[in-house]
Amino acid sequence: MEPVPETVTDPDDPRLEPYARIRERDLVGRGNRFIVEGEVTLRLLLGRRSRFRAESILLLPERWPSLAGAVAACPEPPPVFLAARAVMSTVAGFPIHRGVLAVGLRGAEPELSGLVPPPPSPALVLGLAGLTNHDNVGAALRNAAAFGADAVILDAESCDPLYRKSIRVSAGAALIQPFARLTADQDWLRLADSLGLQALALSPGAVETLDEGAAPARALLILGTEGPGLDATILARARPVRIPMAAGFDSLNVATAAGIALHSIARSQGRLDGGR
Amino acid sequence: MEPVPETVTDPDDPRLEPYARIRERDLVGRGNRFIVEGEVTLRLLLGRRSRFRAESILLLPERWPSLAGAVAACPEPPPVFLAARAVMSTVAGFPIHRGVLAVGLRGAEPELSGLVPPPPSPALVLGLAGLTNHDNVGAALRNAAAFGADAVILDAESCDPLYRKSIRVSAGAALIQPFARLTADQDWLRLADSLGLQALALSPGAVETLDEGAAPARALLILGTEGPGLDATILARARPVRIPMAAGFDSLNVATAAGIALHSIARSQGRLDGGR
Repeated sequence: MEPVPETVTDPDDPRLEPYARIRERDLVGRGNRFIVEGEVTLRLLLGRRSRFRAESILLLPERWPSLAGAVAACPEPPPVFLAARAVMSTVAGFPIHRGVLAVGLRGAEPELSGLVPPPPSPALVLGLAGLTNHDNVGAALRNAAAFGADAVILDAESCDPLYRKSIRVSAGAALIQPFARLTADQDWLRLADSLGLQALALSPGAVETLDEGAAPARALLILGTEGPGLDATILARARPVRIPMAAGFDSLNVATAAGIALHSIARSQGRLDGGR
Repeated sequence: MEPVPETVTDPDDPRLEPYARIRERDLVGRGNRFIVEGEVTLRLLLGRRSRFRAESILLLPERWPSLAGAVAACPEPPPVFLAARAVMSTVAGFPIHRGVLAVGLRGAEPELSGLVPPPPSPALVLGLAGLTNHDNVGAALRNAAAFGADAVILDAESCDPLYRKSIRVSAGAALIQPFARLTADQDWLRLADSLGLQALALSPGAVETLDEGAAPARALLILGTEGPGLDATILARARPVRIPMAAGFDSLNVATAAGIALHSIARSQGRLDGGR
């Protein structure tokens, strides 16, 4: 059935409540909800590969025609509200430019064991330790999706991939790339063992360089923050590897380092398109 | 001679004028000057590999002891002003947290031919076409420095690597990585010819994947913006290559793509540290 959008003119309309004071709520969290901005990201939320359900969509009226098809193709099309720019901006609490917002529902966190294929299949999992910057988490998710990682695992300190800015920086990858949290009773090395993965700890101080030929067929690639890096306890128990760099400026952004390492491992595992 | 810092208490002191209204001036440009923020970046500006001279330095008093050595080691130590946080914030026009600022001088733009070693030496040059986002330009410079590119060349549309935010995102690489502008009478392909470089155009639509073995010993790697990508005229005349990705989400940030491609080419050229 073709979804029929409803026009909303009152900024206090209770149906728009989840869109109210977006920035203030970024700080305190939204419980089971998250905010998606922009057309590319909304299409991923509505698409076949999305891990989440849209609760509702809020658009400028002129954005509806180009998005109607994507909404109709959704198995359970969410309600669509149309509002003038001034109404959207009043509700959101800042000027809305692109005019495409949606509220997504988190649902239950997936079981890690269900995300990673069992041995002897190749497997590639990205572990993020202590990444407290939303841009870096979003960018790392984007790179994980680009290189087909089976899952991203975040420790308790790392920030939320479904934070508004993380989703935006991820180019929507946060909505399709499977991710899960490291639970309190797990640690990185026990996790690797339980899933049959070899733990690689990316560290500029490692002796071994990340070499395509030597990448394990089942890898958990762990990265820490740029300054302190990974805990000595992780480095001691995992296989430390580094990305070779030019002399004198061995400094990479953590998400970029993740991208380079994932590209290298994914190629050697044969999981990229090769001769598409 | 040990430099002696001078304490400044008046926000209207004319010696602090280059630090006034930092954000407003970001918009209009600073002519021959640029602003450096933070200790890591200041050390690069003062260091041996810096391409620029510091005109002056402005610090919170407590930051001086740890930086005195780096200033003293400078061939021509610039004047150092110390100011209380309230004075610094008043001058800059926003709250100064880290308490480390400097003004750099651009000097003359380097000649491109002087940056790229002549044949038959290996050469690696990064070309940025139409990159209008300061974060992306800064991040691309950082990756160029990390993988030892000889030079970065920016077209007229691309933004300034010495913009305050570009320097910050580059982790200071903008201060040491040689870069220059594509002049109005040049185009990318003529430039590659004149320097004896093979032009590689990174494009998701390319048939050929970037393969380490096949990287040219003298490469100009050209990247465009994420949306429109490179001009068809460039793609038609250069050798288009792509980074292989997972099916279904072939989307990389442009600076990340630059990092992955530079890493791949630099490795095959043998310019990375290998067994340091």
